Amino acid sequence: MPKTATIVGAGLVGSLWAVYLAKAGLHVKIFERRADIRKAEISAGKSINLALSDRGWRAFETVGIHERVRKMAIPMYGRMMHDTDGNLSFQPYGQKGQAIYSVSRGGINALMMDIAEEEGQLDIYYHQKCYDVDAIKGICYFEHTKTGEHTQIKSDLVFGTDGAFSAVRYSELQKQAGFDYSQHYIEDGYREILLPANPDGSYKLEKNALHIWPRGRFMLIALPNEDGSFTCTLFMPHRGPQSFEQLTSTDRVNAFFEQTFPDFYALMPEVGDSWSDHPLSSLALIQCYPWTYHRVALLGDAAHATVPFYGQGMNCGFEDCSIMWQLMQQYGQNWPQIFEAYQQERKPNADAMQELSLHNYHVMRDYVADPDFLLQKKLERKIQELYPETYMPLYSMVTFSHIPYAEAKKKGMQQNKEIKEILKKYPIDAFFENNTITEWIHHYMKTKKEAVS
Amino acid sequence: MPKTATIVGAGLVGSLWAVYLAKAGLHVKIFERRADIRKAEISAGKSINLALSDRGWRAFETVGIHERVRKMAIPMYGRMMHDTDGNLSFQPYGQKGQAIYSVSRGGINALMMDIAEEEGQLDIYYHQKCYDVDAIKGICYFEHTKTGEHTQIKSDLVFGTDGAFSAVRYSELQKQAGFDYSQHYIEDGYREILLPANPDGSYKLEKNALHIWPRGRFMLIALPNEDGSFTCTLFMPHRGPQSFEQLTSTDRVNAFFEQTFPDFYALMPEVGDSWSDHPLSSLALIQCYPWTYHRVALLGDAAHATVPFYGQGMNCGFEDCSIMWQLMQQYGQNWPQIFEAYQQERKPNADAMQELSLHNYHVMRDYVADPDFLLQKKLERKIQELYPETYMPLYSMVTFSHIPYAEAKKKGMQQNKEIKEILKKYPIDAFFENNTITEWIHHYMKTKKEAVS
Repeated sequence: MPKTATIVGAGLVGSLWAVYLAKAGLHVKIFERRADIRKAEISAGKSINLALSDRGWRAFETVGIHERVRKMAIPMYGRMMHDTDGNLSFQPYGQKGQAIYSVSRGGINALMMDIAEEEGQLDIYYHQKCYDVDAIKGICYFEHTKTGEHTQIKSDLVFGTDGAFSAVRYSELQKQAGFDYSQHYIEDGYREILLPANPDGSYKLEKNALHIWPRGRFMLIALPNEDGSFTCTLFMPHRGPQSFEQLTSTDRVNAFFEQTFPDFYALMPEVGDSWSDHPLSSLALIQCYPWTYHRVALLGDAAHATVPFYGQGMNCGFEDCSIMWQLMQQYGQNWPQIFEAYQQERKPNADAMQELSLHNYHVMRDYVADPDFLLQKKLERKIQELYPETYMPLYSMVTFSHIPYAEAKKKGMQQNKEIKEILKKYPIDAFFENNTITEWIHHYMKTKKEAVS
Repeated sequence: MPKTATIVGAGLVGSLWAVYLAKAGLHVKIFERRADIRKAEISAGKSINLALSDRGWRAFETVGIHERVRKMAIPMYGRMMHDTDGNLSFQPYGQKGQAIYSVSRGGINALMMDIAEEEGQLDIYYHQKCYDVDAIKGICYFEHTKTGEHTQIKSDLVFGTDGAFSAVRYSELQKQAGFDYSQHYIEDGYREILLPANPDGSYKLEKNALHIWPRGRFMLIALPNEDGSFTCTLFMPHRGPQSFEQLTSTDRVNAFFEQTFPDFYALMPEVGDSWSDHPLSSLALIQCYPWTYHRVALLGDAAHATVPFYGQGMNCGFEDCSIMWQLMQQYGQNWPQIFEAYQQERKPNADAMQELSLHNYHVMRDYVADPDFLLQKKLERKIQELYPETYMPLYSMVTFSHIPYAEAKKKGMQQNKEIKEILKKYPIDAFFENNTITEWIHHYMKTKKEAVS
């Protein structure tokens, strides 16, 4: 019966997973390459923020920490679209009360490390760079990044929660014959910009929304922080006529924002000066298999890093923890069985989540400004309102349910096809205008049910 | 003007590339992880042998070493198929006199290291494991695998010719944002078996052919060695009903060979005892991009490792050298320009070569035993014989020409489609039988030409 576990990486998934393992009675040691995030100088506004949704919440609920996370989470009930004339349009994410939550990566990470330490039987070591792993013996090798001191730790289980460029994966799994691996960069990069609060601390944009400036080949988004600021992110190609490589001076940045995002520019005419506060970053998809090897398992980005356009990277990593936990209950402490079931169940779902993430980039930067797409969304919400047991739009299945990603994707694609056909065949717009839409939907669903039975 | 170059990996491509660089007047240092292959105990029969074809020969001719290679190369003029009843059928690879050549990896590698050393201005260091590279400064870091001593070498150019699991790629390129990488294992593995010569040193099978025992989902092949032996390779799935995991004892191996390859078994009833002489190995495709970064470039398997079914892995690596050399002539010693042109030209061709390699696995293990496929080959050879300027079968374009792989693949696929349509439409079999095939081809080509013009 395993008694000890080493977790490599004290990021979001690593620190949450530590809480789970401590609850299961294991002695846990976490090794983190960087400094203690709680002591380093990182303000909420400076760190990237993330959208937490139902899969993440469930992972917190399982270990009873959701209340504490809830206190630092800002609900966003829908997308607020900004067009080039500064006109706003709001599109709810789901039914009344449903929201995704803006959380600061640093804040939530620090909280989970606090909670993990409170569990006891748990130590966190910092500045420990993993440089080798022996999966068969369960030994991890670390070098202290300040002192150069070498440490080796033997434990019954090793978990690689060390992110997209996982040292655990890199130094052990990737060397095994039969290990499939790919890293693929998309053409686009991103740069963050902090839109400060008003002098009185109030928000410069609607607080409870995820703001999008969709512009076809690129887009700007903004998520609220607790201090009244917004963390904004510009996604666009690295190279080409409208790309990061063109924005080489403060003047060019200002001119670009003034022309492309005039309402944003009006709120932040100093955008050019803030341009270099955050680096230009790249976006990659990472796929690999198997995820487990002898005493080692990968969770989170180490197994399936994705692009951020569905807001599911973190949520999927947290769901890895819930699922592994379920399997621990199911198989007792038979870890070879748990590991095998874990990877077989999670791999197709992570693949689906990645495909959905890529697809949603098009949705966000392009379709959200498209009248047909908006009408489709409106119709889907209406059908769901009337037939909540029967119909759930793809976005809701991904964001507000625990339906496995692969199943959600498959069902969602079928629904999408059906809705598009409806929109071609019937004047849905007119039904909304003359208030006959409810009646029409009842009629349609009845006919459909009869056709099926 | 660059004066010094470091080559990491003294394998086939590394040692050939050293000859090229020495000829270009550079001071070259080669670092090899293993021992000197010329001093280690490796007999020809024990090392894997490879099929050398025209792209490889051209690379040798450019630096004038083809005559010396020729002395250790055994021409194979076609495929000799062995069916389960032991019946043989021979299928020429090309026109009269055209052949691919069986060479021993160890033998040819040792020869090229000799030639490289004769060039002067060149040193080879052994037991040097590369563990880091600084592409911007041109520094490579090595650890001596026997003494543990660390060395760092700075040079103007660095070439990674260190194979599929390249340390140069791994420790530098793969860490760069924007570096796409994938390693994909196919389901099948392979194991080599040495079929010894007769007691008098003569060959047990026809010497000048590549032998194939095609069996649908798997196959056995044999290539001649200079000492009268054959290096045979069994390709089959790792797992499943007919797979390596079933062959767990000497008896099972013997029974499998007796039933599946009876004529081979008759020649080598001790096959079960030799089973463990060579390890079970895996087969992977490696793709990445870019291939160059500052002072570093990858050549050969480090850039594009493939499965061995078209016999083009080594030939493509050698062609990398020819092409880089051509670009050196074209751009003088403007290395940034050479590197950029090199990767842009070679990447699509390496991709095509890999697709062709995968495709040819089906051809070898399956289609070669199919009458339709054999008829197609016969017709293609006939057309080529009559219209050598106009028509070259895909296999010939890949093996006996220098047409870029991507172009060969595209053209070959079109031709394939055309030939399949001809076989559907006309009784080609009958035309061969009643000797009207020549007449018919002339007629067909004339009609086709008229249709086009």
